[in-house]
Amino acid sequence: MYNYKLLIQYDGGRYKGWQRLGNGENTIQGKIEYVLSELIGEPTEIIGCSRTDAGVHALTQVANFKTSKEFSGNDIMKYLNHYLPQDISVIEVATVSEDFHARYHAKEKTYLYRIWNREYTNPFMRKYSMHIEDKLDITLMEEAASYFIGAHDFTAYTNAKTKKKSMVREIYSIKIHEEEGFINIRIRGNAFLYNMVRRMVGTLIEVGLGKCEPNEIPKIIEAKQRNQTGDMAQACGLYLENIQY
Amino acid sequence: MYNYKLLIQYDGGRYKGWQRLGNGENTIQGKIEYVLSELIGEPTEIIGCSRTDAGVHALTQVANFKTSKEFSGNDIMKYLNHYLPQDISVIEVATVSEDFHARYHAKEKTYLYRIWNREYTNPFMRKYSMHIEDKLDITLMEEAASYFIGAHDFTAYTNAKTKKKSMVREIYSIKIHEEEGFINIRIRGNAFLYNMVRRMVGTLIEVGLGKCEPNEIPKIIEAKQRNQTGDMAQACGLYLENIQY
Repeated sequence: MYNYKLLIQYDGGRYKGWQRLGNGENTIQGKIEYVLSELIGEPTEIIGCSRTDAGVHALTQVANFKTSKEFSGNDIMKYLNHYLPQDISVIEVATVSEDFHARYHAKEKTYLYRIWNREYTNPFMRKYSMHIEDKLDITLMEEAASYFIGAHDFTAYTNAKTKKKSMVREIYSIKIHEEEGFINIRIRGNAFLYNMVRRMVGTLIEVGLGKCEPNEIPKIIEAKQRNQTGDMAQACGLYLENIQY
Repeated sequence: MYNYKLLIQYDGGRYKGWQRLGNGENTIQGKIEYVLSELIGEPTEIIGCSRTDAGVHALTQVANFKTSKEFSGNDIMKYLNHYLPQDISVIEVATVSEDFHARYHAKEKTYLYRIWNREYTNPFMRKYSMHIEDKLDITLMEEAASYFIGAHDFTAYTNAKTKKKSMVREIYSIKIHEEEGFINIRIRGNAFLYNMVRRMVGTLIEVGLGKCEPNEIPKIIEAKQRNQTGDMAQACGLYLENIQY
């Protein structure tokens, strides 16, 4: 069997997320598998590293698929980019060893959250960032972010449907960077629960607006209650940015 | 009379350009005048510096309007941004002397043209740049651009409908900058004819693709024939970037 690794970029705006759902549901995995199966000549499944949520974007999603047929990476890339919609792009294709698994082998992921923090909207980024009119206090947000670092049970930061053996995830770093009206929040961790990044950013926004004290975060995490994290930040501001193997 | 100067930003994607047309036509001037007239309490006309074409964007459009009523700049800005669609933003309002005229007093304009020059599309910039798959030769384009500098009769670089007393315009500089897959072309001049920037960029693209020699440009300009400039570059890659007074 040949195993191909794909780097994929997408504007998640009009999709119901990465993961294939039923027939005819508009998902990124579904779109790619449809075109890929045409190329391979038989139904072909693709394994994505992260099941990004409806409306969430990817600067780099990693995926892999196996087939008994040999193709050049360039031919796969050209075919997919020719037939995929313009909001999904395959930016790299590599042949990898047969045991490579895009999800199981991921060691570290980075998510980027973009906030547009001016009074007026940004006409060009209105679908690619969350607009918050009131000035956010970055210093408070950085203090709050420091409480997320390390391994914690993040039950409070996921939704009620999530059932995993362990709710412990480790956050390696959170960097908040202000740049020409944007506040970019980069969260790096070993793995993330469903909705976890958007709920963490939701709390950081509450802190930045002065509605929550930074030192309340350890209490929210410890309480493991899902209704204390503030509103979940909008999907359109979130990007899967990078995956380390 | 009070005279207010506005700096305006817009995503021109879904508009028929800046200039107000008949009733119900979707134009940027029309949208702003509608909301502004509500604020002022009487029909109020706004003068824009540049009549950007259908689909063309503005990072900074300058406009002004006069009224006998006094408002704070901040109140005007808040009202407009509250009622305007999200793809039009007023980013600054200033009170100016009664003789200021956004169009007549402009001394210099800068247009930015963005080309995405990779094989695959850019999912996030597909509506904000022109996609050219084949690699462009920047050195040739820079050589070609140098022939546009100076005062020339740009009849060849406008469309047949354009009737102006003089077709002479002066180009001060053209800078071509490559950056992470984008080729950004900045054209600075005293004024521009209808479609002139997109036709100039069209020629630069032909040169970059090797379909036209740089030294053919003086001949194209001199011939004053409109069918020799190559295809007009797409509207979605063009931004009115800056206006000097």
